[in-house]
Amino acid sequence: MNTTNQILTVSIIGSGNVATALGEVISSNGIRVLEVFSPNIDNSKLLAEKVGCNYVENLEKLNTISDLYIIAIPDNEISNVITKLKSKEGIMVHTSGSQPSDVFEGKFHHYGVFYPLQTFTKGKQVDFQEVPICIEGSNDITSELLVQLAKKISNNVVLLNSEKRQYLHLTAVTVNNFSNLLYNLAHDVLNEKDIDFSLLHPLIKETAVKIRDVNPYQAQTGPALRKEISTINKHLELLDKYSEYKEIYNLLTRQIINKHHG
Amino acid sequence: MNTTNQILTVSIIGSGNVATALGEVISSNGIRVLEVFSPNIDNSKLLAEKVGCNYVENLEKLNTISDLYIIAIPDNEISNVITKLKSKEGIMVHTSGSQPSDVFEGKFHHYGVFYPLQTFTKGKQVDFQEVPICIEGSNDITSELLVQLAKKISNNVVLLNSEKRQYLHLTAVTVNNFSNLLYNLAHDVLNEKDIDFSLLHPLIKETAVKIRDVNPYQAQTGPALRKEISTINKHLELLDKYSEYKEIYNLLTRQIINKHHG
Repeated sequence: MNTTNQILTVSIIGSGNVATALGEVISSNGIRVLEVFSPNIDNSKLLAEKVGCNYVENLEKLNTISDLYIIAIPDNEISNVITKLKSKEGIMVHTSGSQPSDVFEGKFHHYGVFYPLQTFTKGKQVDFQEVPICIEGSNDITSELLVQLAKKISNNVVLLNSEKRQYLHLTAVTVNNFSNLLYNLAHDVLNEKDIDFSLLHPLIKETAVKIRDVNPYQAQTGPALRKEISTINKHLELLDKYSEYKEIYNLLTRQIINKHHG
Repeated sequence: MNTTNQILTVSIIGSGNVATALGEVISSNGIRVLEVFSPNIDNSKLLAEKVGCNYVENLEKLNTISDLYIIAIPDNEISNVITKLKSKEGIMVHTSGSQPSDVFEGKFHHYGVFYPLQTFTKGKQVDFQEVPICIEGSNDITSELLVQLAKKISNNVVLLNSEKRQYLHLTAVTVNNFSNLLYNLAHDVLNEKDIDFSLLHPLIKETAVKIRDVNPYQAQTGPALRKEISTINKHLELLDKYSEYKEIYNLLTRQIINKHHG
């Protein structure tokens, strides 16, 4: 750790959506990314180029001087990578919502979690100022250093323990991954019927921003809420050809009815 | 119909979310709402006060001079109300996504559909300029008059036949009502775990606006897309207590996997 008690230099392990988004925002906020490692050399090179650093081709060649090592890789590869890492003085974090912080225990002195609660896709810029960054540290000093760093890139930094973070991650999957699947189903049907999907854009956006002002129970509208069985049956008929979509329509409609009339 | 070949006066049948939103935006754009009818007298009075008109207590007392009669009531009550209506010279429309335009056939000369594709909740203002208004008319002149009116309140007016409109309505239910149910599930769990639901706001919003730039198939992220079975199993464990939520998690996860790896 450097003597200024700040995180000034970072190594990034990973080159996917999260690694890329974090690498870019960190380096554009005055923290130096020293190196990138990823088994995918092409992605690794791309990210290294974007942030102006080297890429290393082998985990064992990672430096030992960075203040922070960010592991931003798929959840199920984290423990495997940790096993292969040499011990470091700097802080070791992962960016996972679902992995506890103690995956680092026993191997590193300072470790924690740096979980940006957002959906990232390469090529789609995200305004980090709004993104909640959920921090957990192995001790107070580590937490403090990670919070300091997080505050350089976001106005929405929270300390959160591993148990709460896993519930938050579960709900993030629900509101993001599952809503996106719903958009995808709608897109497929409209496309086939030659109807412009963009007609739904304002509705999709209003649905999302409405629950800032109205709690989602009260925000519920639609035929299931009003128990309009004939409209529901008509929709199910339209979906006869789309069995997977129909199964989802059936289940979610039933649950709205249960929730509001059960 | 007046001699100016414009819709200048309107009667509103209904006093719910859609009737209220439409009544307000129409009257604030220079069209005169002459009267409101609704079986719910309290709501009827409220809306009449907002738009500065009378409310009538009986369907039979509706005037015969309005250029347009807007029926904004639950889908399954529309045909019943039409049966009770006396014949009118003005245009008769409903605002339903799912009902065909021919529910008016044989009884009225000029009729159609005026379907604002948005979710409305009383007390939550909506910017109408962006709201797609889907128009169908019983003949060209009727369509034209309805389009003219719609263009006074929105920049996004489209002609759409009944068949296409019912598919659009089906997908609107999917992206709005079902996403909102997902938000509700997330809200319930976070509330119980004493985690602030507003942490999800930026993610929910980004999910919604992202699909303006990235098609929803490509926008998909998450453990199901990456087939991270251990994370998925952990989530299912967290949901052991929440059987309805678990059923939804299971189905939507399976379908994301099928869609991307099937």
